[in-house]
Order: sequence, then C-alpha cells, then structure tokens
Amino acid sequence: MIILGIDPGTVRVGYGVIEVTGRALKILDCGVIGDKNRGAAERLAYIGNEVRALIKKCRPDIIGVEQIYFSKNKKTAISVAEARGVIVFVAKSMEIPILEFTPSDIKSVVAGDGRCDKKSLRKMVAITLGVEKIDGPDDVSDALAIAIRASFEGLK
Amino acid sequence: MIILGIDPGTVRVGYGVIEVTGRALKILDCGVIGDKNRGAAERLAYIGNEVRALIKKCRPDIIGVEQIYFSKNKKTAISVAEARGVIVFVAKSMEIPILEFTPSDIKSVVAGDGRCDKKSLRKMVAITLGVEKIDGPDDVSDALAIAIRASFEGLK
Repeated sequence: MIILGIDPGTVRVGYGVIEVTGRALKILDCGVIGDKNRGAAERLAYIGNEVRALIKKCRPDIIGVEQIYFSKNKKTAISVAEARGVIVFVAKSMEIPILEFTPSDIKSVVAGDGRCDKKSLRKMVAITLGVEKIDGPDDVSDALAIAIRASFEGLK
Repeated sequence: MIILGIDPGTVRVGYGVIEVTGRALKILDCGVIGDKNRGAAERLAYIGNEVRALIKKCRPDIIGVEQIYFSKNKKTAISVAEARGVIVFVAKSMEIPILEFTPSDIKSVVAGDGRCDKKSLRKMVAITLGVEKIDGPDDVSDALAIAIRASFEGLK
C-alpha cells in the first residue's frame, strides 16, 4: 500500500510518500511544494497542479491530510485552509480516499505524545521509517508523520 | 462583458452572473450551489465540480470572489476558506481572471455604505440590476453584489 501524507502550509506544502508492506514502512519520496513569490490565487493554482502531478506520479491508495489547527493567527489559518481545500478537492476529483487527522492525534500516534515538539516528532518519524534522519524543513517530517499516522488507520 | 460573482459559504455557495453593456447591467443567472448532507471533503468536491460546470456554461470574462471575513467563529471561517480555495483553484485552472473584494468594499461600492445590512444591500442590488426584487437566500444577492462590484473594476 502506498500512502501520501500532505501538510498544508501558507508558504510551503510538505509531502511524504511511504510504502507499507505488512508492518514495515519505507520512504518512497518526500519534499515541499511552494513558491512564496506567487500571489495568493497563483499559489493555490500552483499547489493544486503540483498535488495533482504528485498523485499521478506516486499513485497513492490513501492520502492523509492534517486538519486545520486553530492558530492565534487567523490570517495564517485562513490561508492554510484555502490550500487545504484545494488539496482535498484535487484528491477527491482523482478518487483517492482521504483521511484527516488533527496535529495532536498525529503526534500521539507517531511519537506517543500528542504535545511533543517538532524535533521529537522528526526523530520518531526517522526511527519509524528506518532512516538516520529526515532532511528538509519541518513541513517534510510533518507530512511523513501524517503518512505514518494514516498507515495505522489503513491497517485497521 | 460577462461577470460571475461568487459568495463562498459553509453550507451554500451563492453565484450571480451579470452582463455588462456600457454602464447597463443585466442578470443572466443566479442561484446557490450547496448540499448540507455531504461530508466536508465531498462538499468541497461538489462545490469545485459545480463551479467548473457554471464557468463552462456562462463563460465569464471576470470572476469576482468575496475575501474571507474574519468572523468570531473560527470554524466557520476555516470552512469558508476551504471552499474559497477550491473556487479560486478552479477559476485559475480555467484561466479566468479573478478579482477579490472585502465585504465592506462590496457594500460601499454597491450600496454606498460599507456597513449596510443585508436587506439594504439586496435592495440596491435589485435597483442596480433593474429588477423588482432578488429571490432566494442572501447568498444570491451577495453574489450578485460581488458581480456588480467587479463590473466597476472591469470598467476602470
């Protein structure tokens, strides 16, 4: 089973693709989609097109997406929600099942602590995926964490 | 010139299509897209598909969309933002120019008062479009107000 985890953000959208074989998890691909030099509408178009291309490439059985965190910064939350809407729309229009998880649920399942920091989560993601470390910004390790979280759901 | 105004909402998305000939404005179509019996992801897919079909049908030169109002209710704002993201993505992928306006700007230009109530706005929309009254929920008159607002921008 192939799982794509997506972490929607304002500037960057993190993604992580893992392969699940029994209980073994393996990274297939990960990275970020984003270009802060675009206007808001262009950015949404770009994110949607890139996510569509990513789905075509990795052909996931399930897509996991983080639910919106009600941050103190409303403007950020709105901008992330717009990106999230586009991602869900693209996934749905390609008929891929979507699972949605809250940040605390992801941390709780992946790192055993729903309130752990980014560094601890990143470390547990690396251990779970059998790699020394996860490169790139937190968006990447967050996206892989979402994919790992979704893999537990998929096993149910 | 054909202008499509869209008012993204949680339950319903209002739309209004107007034709601009010189300074004369005429309603071509208006209504709501929405089905509250769907789940969040299904709802976004439905809205995106319906907006795409609407654009194909009315072939607008410009699409006007309301910017998110930072309401007291964060959950509502998030849900509206997701719908808005989908609408902008669909419009962009069909290469239709998008203009975005704040609620107060729309009211100010259409009704001469940025803080007017829904009823006054609806009345001014009807007068501007030369009809006796606007039928349907506020989402419809709001969407027509956005289209009228965009028509002023288009004339610049």
